[in-house]
Amino acid sequence: MHKRIVFIVLDGLGDEYIPQLKGTPLEYVSKELININKLVSRGLCGLLAPVSVGIPPSSDTAHLSMFGYDLAVEYPGRGVFEAYGEGLELKEGEVAFRFNLETVEKKGNHLIIRDRRAGRIEDPIAEKLIEDFKRVLKEHDLPVEIHHTVEHRGTLILKPRDGKLSPKISDMDPHEVGQPVLQSEPYEETPENELENAKRTADLINRIVRLSYEFLNDHELNKQRIAEGKPPGNIIVPRGAGMKTKLRSFSEKWGVKAAFVAGGPLYKGVARLIGMHEIPVPGATGKVKTNLKGKVEGVLKALDEGYDFVFLHIKGTDTLSHDKKSLEKAQFIKKIDEHLEPLTELKDIVIGLTGDHSTSSLQGKHIGLPVPILFYTDIGGRPSGAKAFSEHNCAKYNNIGVIRGPDVMPLLMDLAGRMNEFGLRPSPKRVLYIGAFGRPLSL
Amino acid sequence: MHKRIVFIVLDGLGDEYIPQLKGTPLEYVSKELININKLVSRGLCGLLAPVSVGIPPSSDTAHLSMFGYDLAVEYPGRGVFEAYGEGLELKEGEVAFRFNLETVEKKGNHLIIRDRRAGRIEDPIAEKLIEDFKRVLKEHDLPVEIHHTVEHRGTLILKPRDGKLSPKISDMDPHEVGQPVLQSEPYEETPENELENAKRTADLINRIVRLSYEFLNDHELNKQRIAEGKPPGNIIVPRGAGMKTKLRSFSEKWGVKAAFVAGGPLYKGVARLIGMHEIPVPGATGKVKTNLKGKVEGVLKALDEGYDFVFLHIKGTDTLSHDKKSLEKAQFIKKIDEHLEPLTELKDIVIGLTGDHSTSSLQGKHIGLPVPILFYTDIGGRPSGAKAFSEHNCAKYNNIGVIRGPDVMPLLMDLAGRMNEFGLRPSPKRVLYIGAFGRPLSL
Repeated sequence: MHKRIVFIVLDGLGDEYIPQLKGTPLEYVSKELININKLVSRGLCGLLAPVSVGIPPSSDTAHLSMFGYDLAVEYPGRGVFEAYGEGLELKEGEVAFRFNLETVEKKGNHLIIRDRRAGRIEDPIAEKLIEDFKRVLKEHDLPVEIHHTVEHRGTLILKPRDGKLSPKISDMDPHEVGQPVLQSEPYEETPENELENAKRTADLINRIVRLSYEFLNDHELNKQRIAEGKPPGNIIVPRGAGMKTKLRSFSEKWGVKAAFVAGGPLYKGVARLIGMHEIPVPGATGKVKTNLKGKVEGVLKALDEGYDFVFLHIKGTDTLSHDKKSLEKAQFIKKIDEHLEPLTELKDIVIGLTGDHSTSSLQGKHIGLPVPILFYTDIGGRPSGAKAFSEHNCAKYNNIGVIRGPDVMPLLMDLAGRMNEFGLRPSPKRVLYIGAFGRPLSL
Repeated sequence: MHKRIVFIVLDGLGDEYIPQLKGTPLEYVSKELININKLVSRGLCGLLAPVSVGIPPSSDTAHLSMFGYDLAVEYPGRGVFEAYGEGLELKEGEVAFRFNLETVEKKGNHLIIRDRRAGRIEDPIAEKLIEDFKRVLKEHDLPVEIHHTVEHRGTLILKPRDGKLSPKISDMDPHEVGQPVLQSEPYEETPENELENAKRTADLINRIVRLSYEFLNDHELNKQRIAEGKPPGNIIVPRGAGMKTKLRSFSEKWGVKAAFVAGGPLYKGVARLIGMHEIPVPGATGKVKTNLKGKVEGVLKALDEGYDFVFLHIKGTDTLSHDKKSLEKAQFIKKIDEHLEPLTELKDIVIGLTGDHSTSSLQGKHIGLPVPILFYTDIGGRPSGAKAFSEHNCAKYNNIGVIRGPDVMPLLMDLAGRMNEFGLRPSPKRVLYIGAFGRPLSL
């Protein structure tokens, strides 16, 4: 009996105690949930620490970990996912960055960050700034490709030309207003034979960032913004250097035909890079105002088309947490819940529902507390006794423990009747059973 | 104060929700248990994932893990345990397999499996088929030893002659009716220096399997079976290639004098290979109709004889699960419970009781959900508050967490007052403390 699997990630779902709500946003709304509570009532439940307890993961590392990839050797760096999320492809040896158009102010030798998003600069302005900067890069004959994506965001790709490149370099973005833009440098522990490549890469990206300030700070559109009292987009600040690694495809790794439904570019990037098939959904934006109905229909469509693993990602929960909107987060969870009904009526199905990490709507950032998780199956399984889904109940009724990212797929696969016995091996292929502790075991 | 330890494994004890029973078989019967509930009432309890959560272990890997051996480096392969279970001994360089006499049908180039047990072929028929096939192997001058054991089962040992052998080859048994018998191949990740040996081994076993079909399919006894409407035993299908590894003996590893009581050959094989002393019990068959009274008496005898660790294995719970007999499984647990009374009256004793894995009596196969476990001690310890032993209660009253196989021995040893403080080392011998993470620690 092979069941199909739907894996739902509500980004940044977990949270901490919010005084006004007398609990977390999920706890605040948990009794009002209908469909998610239907799932947890017939499901196992517990807590998930995607990387480890106390470690706040980035979304890309959390997803990769839950999909069963070994972060220690297989994580290619954030920039790679961003590039794939934008539909770009990386060639061997290229280094990709995510960047922001930011607002800086010159103080002595330093460029001090005043706004990390240049006032969430409008698309056409940002687009034009980047287009014009492309010309400058060309004039300087620099081996680089640069793309504006949405608002203040973009992707930058360095190409090997004057020697090999390396992604083992530090971010230029200090991630904090009031701090200076940093010089990128090779990681301290970079091995000797890669150090020169890392230095070459850091020098190149440092030069590009300096150029971007010199050019953008004098740009007509930025002068205009200042006149309008808006922060100028007068520098590009890259982070998350990454290089494509050889990742075994998700389908090959787990023996399933996998599809995904997502709005946010990062999640598309992760899913594309591991070879999941994309189910495009009009209006799936990765924002709070997204097409939830369409996304759930996308999942049903994928199942109808014969995909036996479907990953559904919803971003809004995380965005509202970053903006410290606890009550709105609770309301958004309720809204998601209303759209999940069709999934609760499926037969021969396993549904996993969790977050990729907790995001504190008190602090507006990722935190390392575990996330509630449920594993529903329409028949069999082992109901935990929980009647409502929340951080509190997933601790109280916990019947699987505090699991880690790499435990998620084995649990889903096992409930779907798709795991081989550990110790048997009918195929010569390497069978990865990744245990709770991130150690790949192969027999 | 050094207490004695009895470790009871009810094979495949854990299960999943069975609609007719409104719970698992153990949950269905848990309130009626007398002696096991006496143990859990004075014991710690929790959940055990013998390998990792979501991973369905084979019985041999689960036992080895619970006994504190590192599967990643010390697992010799199933065939080795089967051989030792039958009282055979392996020499260095030999590769052992377990095999089934099965029923196949030729379709084009494929041999499609129709019955994985040739209708649980009768002992004398199977015996004769194998005896006659031995002659064929001799005529072909193949370096192989072959033994019939029980019903459709047997053991096959390849001997090095034309070069070294390697157990790093895949199973020929697809473990599924309707699938073709597979060609054995070297594991994808076999290191270069072992690849040639693995190829040699795969070629040899593939040749033997082909020969077995050619010879057995035309055998008079099989023609007779077909005439009687019975499936013929017309091929041998090996699996679980293994080579003896250097395993430190259990007694040396844990500093106890260890004995075992078991009926099933596989469990005898595991216990013999790690050097436990066998307490033979007449009528201990490893079947549902086994001598439970005699087995418990065997445990008492071992304790009387000065063994301070006794492993008691009961197989029937797993067999009934594979046969999807949920209610019978519940009844068998009740029957076992009735025989455990003498153990509850022992002084200076620690008793662990669990399963080596969950076996779903809904699906008839091993699953990766954790198994309930209890740790009883007649004095001290830390009672969990549970009054009845079940999956549900071991989650609800859990006071040790979801532990892994390698946590079992330290917990038993510690409750028995037999653990050294981590950090102290009164003996020059290597002391293995195997932690929750499957990583052997030595100080």
